[in-house]
Amino acid sequence: MQTYVPPIDDYRFLMTQVLDFDRAMADIGMEVDGDLAATILEEAGRMCAQRLQPLNRTGDEEGSRLIDGAVQLPQGFADAYREFAEAGWASLSSDPEHGGQGLPFVLQLWLDEMLSATNLSFGLIPGLTRGACEAIKAHASDPLKAVYLPPMVRGEWTGAMALTESGAGTDLALLKTKATPKDGDNYAVSGTKIFISSGDHDIGGNIVHLVLARLPDAPAGVRGISLFLVPKFLPDASGAFTVRNAMSVGALERKMGIHAQPTCVMNYDGATGWLVGEPHKGLAAMFTMMNAERLMVGIQGLGIAGGAYQQAAAYARERLQGRSADGTRGPVPIIEHADVRRMLLSVRAFVEAGRALAGWTALQLDRAHRHPDAAERGKADAFVALLTPVVKAAFTDFGFESAVQAQQVFGGHGYIREWGMEQYVRDARIAQIYEGTNGVQAMDLVGRKLALEGGAVAQGFFDLIAADLEGQGAPIAAATRDALQLLRDATAALRGADADALGAAAVDYLRLFALVAMGWMWARMADAATKGGTPLHSAKIAVADFFAGRMLPQVKGLAAALSAGAQSIMALPDDAF
Amino acid sequence: MQTYVPPIDDYRFLMTQVLDFDRAMADIGMEVDGDLAATILEEAGRMCAQRLQPLNRTGDEEGSRLIDGAVQLPQGFADAYREFAEAGWASLSSDPEHGGQGLPFVLQLWLDEMLSATNLSFGLIPGLTRGACEAIKAHASDPLKAVYLPPMVRGEWTGAMALTESGAGTDLALLKTKATPKDGDNYAVSGTKIFISSGDHDIGGNIVHLVLARLPDAPAGVRGISLFLVPKFLPDASGAFTVRNAMSVGALERKMGIHAQPTCVMNYDGATGWLVGEPHKGLAAMFTMMNAERLMVGIQGLGIAGGAYQQAAAYARERLQGRSADGTRGPVPIIEHADVRRMLLSVRAFVEAGRALAGWTALQLDRAHRHPDAAERGKADAFVALLTPVVKAAFTDFGFESAVQAQQVFGGHGYIREWGMEQYVRDARIAQIYEGTNGVQAMDLVGRKLALEGGAVAQGFFDLIAADLEGQGAPIAAATRDALQLLRDATAALRGADADALGAAAVDYLRLFALVAMGWMWARMADAATKGGTPLHSAKIAVADFFAGRMLPQVKGLAAALSAGAQSIMALPDDAF
Repeated sequence: MQTYVPPIDDYRFLMTQVLDFDRAMADIGMEVDGDLAATILEEAGRMCAQRLQPLNRTGDEEGSRLIDGAVQLPQGFADAYREFAEAGWASLSSDPEHGGQGLPFVLQLWLDEMLSATNLSFGLIPGLTRGACEAIKAHASDPLKAVYLPPMVRGEWTGAMALTESGAGTDLALLKTKATPKDGDNYAVSGTKIFISSGDHDIGGNIVHLVLARLPDAPAGVRGISLFLVPKFLPDASGAFTVRNAMSVGALERKMGIHAQPTCVMNYDGATGWLVGEPHKGLAAMFTMMNAERLMVGIQGLGIAGGAYQQAAAYARERLQGRSADGTRGPVPIIEHADVRRMLLSVRAFVEAGRALAGWTALQLDRAHRHPDAAERGKADAFVALLTPVVKAAFTDFGFESAVQAQQVFGGHGYIREWGMEQYVRDARIAQIYEGTNGVQAMDLVGRKLALEGGAVAQGFFDLIAADLEGQGAPIAAATRDALQLLRDATAALRGADADALGAAAVDYLRLFALVAMGWMWARMADAATKGGTPLHSAKIAVADFFAGRMLPQVKGLAAALSAGAQSIMALPDDAF
Repeated sequence: MQTYVPPIDDYRFLMTQVLDFDRAMADIGMEVDGDLAATILEEAGRMCAQRLQPLNRTGDEEGSRLIDGAVQLPQGFADAYREFAEAGWASLSSDPEHGGQGLPFVLQLWLDEMLSATNLSFGLIPGLTRGACEAIKAHASDPLKAVYLPPMVRGEWTGAMALTESGAGTDLALLKTKATPKDGDNYAVSGTKIFISSGDHDIGGNIVHLVLARLPDAPAGVRGISLFLVPKFLPDASGAFTVRNAMSVGALERKMGIHAQPTCVMNYDGATGWLVGEPHKGLAAMFTMMNAERLMVGIQGLGIAGGAYQQAAAYARERLQGRSADGTRGPVPIIEHADVRRMLLSVRAFVEAGRALAGWTALQLDRAHRHPDAAERGKADAFVALLTPVVKAAFTDFGFESAVQAQQVFGGHGYIREWGMEQYVRDARIAQIYEGTNGVQAMDLVGRKLALEGGAVAQGFFDLIAADLEGQGAPIAAATRDALQLLRDATAALRGADADALGAAAVDYLRLFALVAMGWMWARMADAATKGGTPLHSAKIAVADFFAGRMLPQVKGLAAALSAGAQSIMALPDDAF
């Protein structure tokens, strides 16, 4: 039976000693201090550990089911979701104007970490609802907002993003779903969408689909896509949402993992919808939704890695196999074996740096939304834009690798379903794919984000790291300084590169970037820890040393690979593959 | 629908232009030339592609089932196995003395590659039988051999290895299964074993379990383990094997993958067994079996990577998304995108180097068995011993990573079961775990294998690589020379290291070793290819360049990590994990 201990001590350490949370809140005029934040996270963590963790394995076994056209979540999910929403967790960071609690986004992201650690399939339900709310808030008309936002923010209604079609995934220019004007302000939406998370379920309440479709007069390509709000239930004459819209679940996708999550094939058969934003500007509206989701997806990788770590560390302390290094004792707990420690440390070194970097990025997002000074808002917003693809792709890559390492600690038992470790691996895998594959994220980083303000945003980020490291003498600070130089060189080499060169570099470059950013966070944590003296502080220094010595050196290989350029990648003719 | 094109052209290239197959066969007095070998592989490949590949997905969906205590393989498996055995594929490399065809082991290993590429669950059945035959042949009494080997070699009977218990996996010292002397030469074996591949099935014929157990007077630890032959059916008075032995399937393991493979929990309830080898020397007998299996398991990683590559390359040529790099055309096949090419190339660069290295290692094994000169046999045997953990661990690690990359090429479709890509990932994962986890393999390499002949075997292997590279000017040769130096340095640094230092280094060191060995094979292939001029030769040079520029640089990170030593791995107290 898997258990989960919410990492509240670590959040507290990050807030009070690493990220200067109170000052960050004061800067943006929020009355939340580290103590209150920790109390909220503690409460959230209790809910995740006690309510959601126990449903994770049963949800995987049972899966969502399609019965007579309606989706049934695994047993216990609908009840748990209603409790979750009633306790206010669905609206933690939402705008108070629409009934949200208006807490900082950093708390939301750490809640997302705990949700993902305990039950990713479940966490996607409120997560996608929040993304849909963002898009509605930013782009929908006031009447639509007034009707849809309050119940969605409260979590009584949920949201779904209906973008992908079988022929249009990464390339939305190819999408074929149509919307034709009907009476009044609404449209008839027709088409089939695939991979629709939370497309249907039995929680009750409306399900609000945001659907990308083409208007009759739409130009070809991505400039001809519009976004429509298509609810499962339409209002009847009395205004109650009781009338089934002309949309149906074609099938549940049969997936490698996240079995409890009802990922649907959706058919829209002239379903009534309303335009969100301007005609043909659907892609911009969708990106509002996607950007919020992408940070969340990165955090999913982090959460799963953290959950898997806890199981693996506990197992390694208990499982007796082999003799001590000096041969005098045996059998010993496998945690005594260096290679088992290496595996655990590589997971932990990612998880704790990722948690810190997620916190830093989320604080920038809060700053971008709330700082009184527009220049500060702009600067913070640019950092978030820069880091979004890094968090999405690197955290999900390291998250998957971490799940695999944690599974490996269990040996043969790791391959057996009952132990639950293989579920982490299967569930973690999706996060590298959805909301834009990690290759697409990497292209976004090298193509768009490095070019922000003519390269000044990335430059500014690197300078910030350099300034932080200045004067620090710990091994992690020195190692990160060296790695930063490799990153600066790689960045300079990409300036003016053509599309093939960017594409050939993208994934390796993103990983190099992420390792430097994690090194930076380890340097900050190690520096803070030298002022402490508790076991947590000693552990931070030990793990920082591990990261510096055993993980960060990956940057050397990545930098060397990048310097080899695109030539060998483009040489082979297409038909010779 | 997945298809598979057996890599016969590549085998032919390796035999005739890279590995000097005809000369190698002549050296050991075998009358098999490259043409005959290619014809045999072609026939084997046809069987894999036409008979086994179609059963791979259905086998995964259906799985093996336990019905009234008996295991049913998925539909079609038992028939396919009987055809496989009748056609002689089960006995390809077995000793003619027992009815085998006595073909070289190199053909066996490449057959194993194609089996694993098309149906890993199936391939385990003959694979484990072969391992069991090896142990019986090497250690059993003549009467046992006479009875059991012929039907096992013919594939009419199958074998299973019963080693692991729930409390004894890596550490067999802890095993509890007991064997007590009965009447005559036999024993009553009692205990429960887990993770028993092919433990039961409905092919028909006997199932011969080799079971590790303790005799009543056994010393504690691994020096008190004996090996027993425990058949599912015992002979009746007429000598026909009709009497059920006191053993039963407790359960089928529910696993992440290889669903078609009937992995059993086995109960032996005073089952009749015969001692194989001497009392208390079971571990040695088991290692005879394990060493053969370990090479095969490495090849499983290679095979799955090759199968997954073919699906991903075909998909990338057909799937239209996005625009050409210059922006003028779209949608284009995704194989035009640099990052997709990078993913495919990274799989292919492993597969082709792995195939070559597997071939080289197998030829050494043939040499070790058959060369007229004992010194040559000994030298070859030492190389096989050195390379066995490298092939097992590195090929399964790269194999798993390759399956993940191939899945990633499919985007969201890669996560959906129907497409079959996620099955490669789930199936590949086991190979990193069974027959000794990859961590155990790495410890074997740094602990035992580097120490062979005082380090002279490893030294000799490195010298062989250096001699081969001498005078070669291709980028891959230069890059491999540099990498070899890093490997020599890392090897020197491990001399005299204590157990913690070895354990902390093991996995990174093994990967460094494997990358150098693959670079060596790429250098040989690229060198041979410069003398060619066909599309195959051009492709070899292109992929060698990719390996040199984009994959081999990983060695820099690994070498740097190794130089950081064990300190940061051992520092954290056990209870702080």
